[in-house]
Amino acid sequence: MTSSFSEQSFAFLMYPGFEELDLIGPWEMATMWSAYADGPACFTLSQTGEPITCAKGLKVTPDYSFATAPDFDYLMVPGGFAALEEMKNQAMNNFLADAASRAESVLSVCTGSLMLYAAGLLNGKKATTHWKMLPEMKTFDGVEVVEQRYVHDGAIWTSAGVSAGIDMTLAFVADMAGEAAASIVQHNAEYYPDPVRYGGEAAADTSPAYVRALVAAE
Amino acid sequence: MTSSFSEQSFAFLMYPGFEELDLIGPWEMATMWSAYADGPACFTLSQTGEPITCAKGLKVTPDYSFATAPDFDYLMVPGGFAALEEMKNQAMNNFLADAASRAESVLSVCTGSLMLYAAGLLNGKKATTHWKMLPEMKTFDGVEVVEQRYVHDGAIWTSAGVSAGIDMTLAFVADMAGEAAASIVQHNAEYYPDPVRYGGEAAADTSPAYVRALVAAE
Repeated sequence: MTSSFSEQSFAFLMYPGFEELDLIGPWEMATMWSAYADGPACFTLSQTGEPITCAKGLKVTPDYSFATAPDFDYLMVPGGFAALEEMKNQAMNNFLADAASRAESVLSVCTGSLMLYAAGLLNGKKATTHWKMLPEMKTFDGVEVVEQRYVHDGAIWTSAGVSAGIDMTLAFVADMAGEAAASIVQHNAEYYPDPVRYGGEAAADTSPAYVRALVAAE
Repeated sequence: MTSSFSEQSFAFLMYPGFEELDLIGPWEMATMWSAYADGPACFTLSQTGEPITCAKGLKVTPDYSFATAPDFDYLMVPGGFAALEEMKNQAMNNFLADAASRAESVLSVCTGSLMLYAAGLLNGKKATTHWKMLPEMKTFDGVEVVEQRYVHDGAIWTSAGVSAGIDMTLAFVADMAGEAAASIVQHNAEYYPDPVRYGGEAAADTSPAYVRALVAAE
């Protein structure tokens, strides 16, 4: 038995109404890891395996259902307003709790962290979410809400809204496989983003602390 | 007849093997524009309308085929290694040439610009592509290759690789609808990316000029 990274696997969870970039940003980084730096095999799964319409209308089809999916080492959970409905889905909560008991790491983007909370995975953890849901998350018992771009607390990684999953996944690659692997992923995805901030929204009172700090530093 | 922006439409081109984030990054920005700042309606289309497997294995289904798609004002063309095959697809070339003659703007990400070239859309234009294809693109007649994150030349917008389409689309929103609209899109997508560059790949000789300038400025 070898323990080559390429024999590991990374599952990406889909559900009706998930936010497109929440999943596909991390998917692109993880699959670049697979393609160019010996990263884990990546696949998608959902409760039923049936075709799904995303939050903004993109139509996708998961590779597997909960029943047919192979084992995995890492799990990515996207957000979207639909995550608030999934918090009440007992089959989803059971899946997440079981996954967390067997997987090495569970990661969430945006309101995906609310699903982790509903499944009991954030007890005693630091975590974050989309800025719109920070006030709600701060009412949750047992979670320390941190207003960062992403938060790593043991086996649980959570990110801020939508695009923040890209940054979290690169940091995850660096943590798991080293900075050289993250460098290769970043370069192939040409992820050297433009730092421009348009208009005044970043300075809003509702902006998360990490964004207000960027504004204040100017 | 009003000319409200929300009555305009933005088509997103799919083809077998397109690179996931090339399309979904811009899609997320454009659909946030629709959802929160009166942006155009967004839809996906492909030559046949049949289900498609993307470069890294994501399974998607277009909303329309070339034959069934409604008219559109803007068109987004993603890249991927498969774009090199699409350059030889006469039906694709015809579609792109026809689209360019009727649409207000045509945008491409990554090697999508090579498809615009094959369709005759880059004659006399400044344009860019993924750093891997810059040497190839520089052999093309009639195109001025610019090593920027994205390039706007009249009705044609082209971006560098994969993730660069996000930055281009935000700039496109700012250009079309104003900085306040781009600010709302950026804030809802929480696109305040981490500026970290992992490892040494960014400093490679093959890095595009805009990335080498970032490294040199440190």
